[in-house]
Amino acid sequence: MKASIQSEILKIKESIKLDSGKYIDSCEVAYKTFGKPNRDKSNAILVCHALSGDQFCSGINPLTKKKGWWSILIGPGKVIDTNIFYVICSNVLGGCMGSSGPSSKNPKTKKEYGLNFPVITISDMVKVQEKLISKLGIKKLFAVIGGSMGGMQTLEWATKFKSKINAAIPIATSYRHSAQNIAFHEIGRQAIMADPGWNRGDYYKKKVGPRGGLSVARMIAHITYLSEHALQRKFGRNLQNSDFFSFNFDTDFQIESYLKHQGSSFVERFDANSYLYITKAMDYFDLSIKKGGLSKVFNNTNVKFCFFTFTSDWLFPTSETKTIIKSLNSSNSMVSFVEVKTDKGHDAFLLDEPEFHATLKGFIEGQIGQQGI
Amino acid sequence: MKASIQSEILKIKESIKLDSGKYIDSCEVAYKTFGKPNRDKSNAILVCHALSGDQFCSGINPLTKKKGWWSILIGPGKVIDTNIFYVICSNVLGGCMGSSGPSSKNPKTKKEYGLNFPVITISDMVKVQEKLISKLGIKKLFAVIGGSMGGMQTLEWATKFKSKINAAIPIATSYRHSAQNIAFHEIGRQAIMADPGWNRGDYYKKKVGPRGGLSVARMIAHITYLSEHALQRKFGRNLQNSDFFSFNFDTDFQIESYLKHQGSSFVERFDANSYLYITKAMDYFDLSIKKGGLSKVFNNTNVKFCFFTFTSDWLFPTSETKTIIKSLNSSNSMVSFVEVKTDKGHDAFLLDEPEFHATLKGFIEGQIGQQGI
Repeated sequence: MKASIQSEILKIKESIKLDSGKYIDSCEVAYKTFGKPNRDKSNAILVCHALSGDQFCSGINPLTKKKGWWSILIGPGKVIDTNIFYVICSNVLGGCMGSSGPSSKNPKTKKEYGLNFPVITISDMVKVQEKLISKLGIKKLFAVIGGSMGGMQTLEWATKFKSKINAAIPIATSYRHSAQNIAFHEIGRQAIMADPGWNRGDYYKKKVGPRGGLSVARMIAHITYLSEHALQRKFGRNLQNSDFFSFNFDTDFQIESYLKHQGSSFVERFDANSYLYITKAMDYFDLSIKKGGLSKVFNNTNVKFCFFTFTSDWLFPTSETKTIIKSLNSSNSMVSFVEVKTDKGHDAFLLDEPEFHATLKGFIEGQIGQQGI
Repeated sequence: MKASIQSEILKIKESIKLDSGKYIDSCEVAYKTFGKPNRDKSNAILVCHALSGDQFCSGINPLTKKKGWWSILIGPGKVIDTNIFYVICSNVLGGCMGSSGPSSKNPKTKKEYGLNFPVITISDMVKVQEKLISKLGIKKLFAVIGGSMGGMQTLEWATKFKSKINAAIPIATSYRHSAQNIAFHEIGRQAIMADPGWNRGDYYKKKVGPRGGLSVARMIAHITYLSEHALQRKFGRNLQNSDFFSFNFDTDFQIESYLKHQGSSFVERFDANSYLYITKAMDYFDLSIKKGGLSKVFNNTNVKFCFFTFTSDWLFPTSETKTIIKSLNSSNSMVSFVEVKTDKGHDAFLLDEPEFHATLKGFIEGQIGQQGI
């Protein structure tokens, strides 16, 4: 898979201490940039991707041949205008699009890591991103932005490296993964690990990996990205092929066909072990267990925050963002927050949502004025 | 499994035409009764079970050695008082607790049906129940009651055999399965069918059936039975075994351990093919495709209805019951309806919910007065 991915690669040769206590001795970060840095590199925006995302947030994804996952927002003349900004997006540590992860070869053994890859956290992902940003000669990021797991990374940047960012834009995210979200992830992992093709993570030399398990995991997750209302509106009880029920276990309803397609196309582009590692990192994420708890984690920050949530997002409901905002308000921080009314569920952050885009544009323009880039 | 199930068995020797157009030539219905019939058998209540339920709605389930699934509601002196009522509960057609289903032996071939068992509908289940009720010499049921899929059967009784029931008590149910519910079921089926142990439904002679797949299917479904709030309240992010994260893919959180237990214990008592057949029957359920649509389906009925929904039930939200009630109101029917405030989700219908139980008791007592039993 990786041979075909046209990305820049940063090789980090120093040893990085992970949250687990283990070290990763050398790792690679695959990244893409869009736009150009200005003279003092004060126009850099770091875009953080979600669970199934990658570094191809704009342009064309060379693997899928489709537009990048945030092309609607990022490009020349767009809300994140690459005529103005230098946009950086890297594949997360643990991923499968060129950054070091379980499908990478362990430089020591020359074999794929599999389950020998260390378990990582959102904070570990961010540590590696910070190495990349430093390497690119950027002293302070104009902004960090991301949705879902990208929002978790954004929040982590705002606590761990708060002096290195001007603004943080966490979207459709939370300060910690809820019990229900952990549950959905765990079922996805169980589906993968129950697949005999998984073979305890050692399947890279085999013809077939845990395709069935990964497909089921993706289908489960995919439902949580949509709202009940949007599913009903888009698919309802429409039948796929015939005028009446098939009375067998093939596809009857359009929703079934849609989900199966989601599952089978995901298997073509994603590594099952990466799915285990990245979901685990999300499950572990919890700002409230940092020193001082959630009420102290943002103390004395100069970061300007702009939060977005979506009314029909039941994976990361608005109430969780409000909890973060309460903490930020009590530490007298600069916070703006918009709850966008939509029936498109969690996935709304990737879609054409005019209110979201207009408000984000306003926030960015305000910051351009203040930062004078 | 079946040898140990102490139930009455009715053998139906006549051929029954199924909704698929196929016939089932002979079938068996496993059932339990509680309490005694009065002289004219006017005190009979039919209890319809949900997807994973069985005929052991009260007393002790001989397979699990646990109390019957609705023991909280049914028994001497309870809301459904077996000192007064003759309660009948039968395992659904397609089930695996003694009624004919895919794990039964086909009398013609002497082998388990597997996928040769005909695909069935809720209406087919009810046709078979009606044969049982007739055989027991009951002319008119005092009431039919059930939650979830049991509620679908209750609604089917109220349309198909409306002259044979006095009251219908549909709980936490709908007139049709929504796109989201179909989606969750389909993923469960995919998990089962992706398990090599499934072997296209032909696993009864093998040592191991699709245990992993069925376990994942149960875990998916189980999340939908609970509310996000109840999960957070009961489990939150509590860790299972240690003071800190394990940094491996074993169990970290209590919610993970709880779900795995739900999955693995279900596998001990349920047949994977039955899971396919019964979920399909639920997905097919749609009163609105009956002649005349939902607005006509309850026309000219003398059935007294009492509906219950639960505020945190996101599988069968109150709005869907309200749609049925609108239809009933326009046909001038006798309908009462209570939305019970609870954070326990869909499962609330099985749990200690005082408002639900008190209102149900009131409705039943009112009917006792009217019917004069």
